[in-house]
Amino acid sequence: MRTIEWESGAVKMIDQRVLPGRFEIAVYRDYRDVARAIAEMVIRGAPAIGAAAAFGLALAAQQTTTHDRLTLLRELEEAAAVLRAARPTAVNLGWALGRLLRVAVAEDLDSADDVREALLREAQRLADEDVEINKRMAKNGAALISDGDTLLHHCNTGALATVDYGTALGVIRMAHEQGKRIHVLVDETRPRLQGARLTAWELKQLGLPFDLIADNAAGHFMRTGQVNAVFVGADRIAANGDVANKIGTYKLAVVAKENGVPFYSVAPTSTVDLSLAIGDLIPIEERNGREVLGLEFEGESVVPEGITARNPAFDVTPHRYVTAIVTEKSVVYPPFVRNLERAVNGE
Amino acid sequence: MRTIEWESGAVKMIDQRVLPGRFEIAVYRDYRDVARAIAEMVIRGAPAIGAAAAFGLALAAQQTTTHDRLTLLRELEEAAAVLRAARPTAVNLGWALGRLLRVAVAEDLDSADDVREALLREAQRLADEDVEINKRMAKNGAALISDGDTLLHHCNTGALATVDYGTALGVIRMAHEQGKRIHVLVDETRPRLQGARLTAWELKQLGLPFDLIADNAAGHFMRTGQVNAVFVGADRIAANGDVANKIGTYKLAVVAKENGVPFYSVAPTSTVDLSLAIGDLIPIEERNGREVLGLEFEGESVVPEGITARNPAFDVTPHRYVTAIVTEKSVVYPPFVRNLERAVNGE
Repeated sequence: MRTIEWESGAVKMIDQRVLPGRFEIAVYRDYRDVARAIAEMVIRGAPAIGAAAAFGLALAAQQTTTHDRLTLLRELEEAAAVLRAARPTAVNLGWALGRLLRVAVAEDLDSADDVREALLREAQRLADEDVEINKRMAKNGAALISDGDTLLHHCNTGALATVDYGTALGVIRMAHEQGKRIHVLVDETRPRLQGARLTAWELKQLGLPFDLIADNAAGHFMRTGQVNAVFVGADRIAANGDVANKIGTYKLAVVAKENGVPFYSVAPTSTVDLSLAIGDLIPIEERNGREVLGLEFEGESVVPEGITARNPAFDVTPHRYVTAIVTEKSVVYPPFVRNLERAVNGE
Repeated sequence: MRTIEWESGAVKMIDQRVLPGRFEIAVYRDYRDVARAIAEMVIRGAPAIGAAAAFGLALAAQQTTTHDRLTLLRELEEAAAVLRAARPTAVNLGWALGRLLRVAVAEDLDSADDVREALLREAQRLADEDVEINKRMAKNGAALISDGDTLLHHCNTGALATVDYGTALGVIRMAHEQGKRIHVLVDETRPRLQGARLTAWELKQLGLPFDLIADNAAGHFMRTGQVNAVFVGADRIAANGDVANKIGTYKLAVVAKENGVPFYSVAPTSTVDLSLAIGDLIPIEERNGREVLGLEFEGESVVPEGITARNPAFDVTPHRYVTAIVTEKSVVYPPFVRNLERAVNGE
């Protein structure tokens, strides 16, 4: 199944909190629960939470029984605010909601039921498009990978981070499907271990050779010439090409540049936020310190009691460390200010 | 108690594998068990394993019943080889054994019993000196810390990494004891979590304010101007100032330099290996992948079954990223080739 699907009036998601130990499907019939699922990371990954927000809004439209179109639109604005507040960094959330709200207010929709139908259709379309977009990105990016390459990957950007197929991991998967012999070094990605839990699970299923590494080890492998390229996703890209992505990305990018290793961010143009001039304007979510403190090691709690943690979930990689941004339109190289705008606006 | 002590013919160590959950003392009466304790990281930290090797050799001398001095010396060579092989990267192991073996062959020792006594005395002296050296380093390094500073620290370099007091964490402790108001960001230090387990435990006991962070977060805090200096230890320093230290140090150093954050390695001159011209000659231990794979998160095993990991335990930070090396003699600045040699040879 896809990471997220609509079925019989409900939103279904693979529960990513319990993978790889258990494969469970969460089913939601209230958009507020969808918002909570996004906040608690039942579903994560910028494109996937964009789709979750879209289906969440379609669900909100089904929940209300009003026959009045204007009342429905007002309620949808409220629901959109709840969904938008679930997580702050990934722009895909706001992007998806904006797209659905524009459909909702279209003048040719006469009744509340017309709006309901149009919203669900649009959410479905958005989800279907995500898969197509990922495959186009994957083809564009796979051209950057050579036979025999060892690739470094951070966090999870695979099928689970999207509706299906993946962004950065989609590129790696495409290269593998094209018959290139590649090896992946998988950053475990503390604190939530999306690499160790989700990327390892996906790569194992794909039969793609890989080794898990501690995030700390990535620099050693780059400095000693064992990495040919770094591929990561993105949660929001500013107009100048600065990339907000999973915490730890910035360190990787700096060290990659220092060692002449190409550093690629793979993201659909919906992740580009032309309204923000620079990356430092991107809101960075700081999550609960328990994600850092709640760790067990060999069956015992690791940290002393009563201590505190800082837990920024994302960091910003300034564009000067980014070799190129792989989108569904093209591989975008510097100068990003001009070339990203062209890619987004579809020239 | 100290991290390691000699008592009634046995070597006692705090078992660092079970901290902070349990405080247990391991007692060894066979030098082979001491070697195993070093390999399995019951004791770790370059100065501490130097002391462990010294006491281990003193123990080997007590174990044999020979009255023949030459036979004893031969047996000591064998024991030294076993102890030296316990871990490859920290030079303090070989340094301590060399120091004891030189004492053992001193011409004024007539009998096997004289050798036994001299070895134990020398091991005790080495351990006592370690504490004194650490305090001198701490004073030298504390001068680099200003009131109000936030310091980033990697791995554990405190009392537990030495006989007592610590190297890099000793510097931080000294600044705190001098009344400077400082805050520490503690890298958790995957895969073995020496920061989360040991440094957090030590800092809590010292009443020194700190926050635990995922290793991935260090770059974010440096880029956003929230770190005034980075302090780390060292396992071996080459003649040109290249520093081998806990995996992840290299990434920190590169990002510190990129952000104009001073990067200090704190180590006794016994950690400097003038016989190696450059850091790439330092042997880097690759430990069992289970250290990366054996992780639990919220009570469940994290990684899929049947996958593999790479697990280098150290990396090399080229000297161009090192602002200064803090030793017991002085704070050594570039050019390191000249100034390290002067510090080691006691000019």
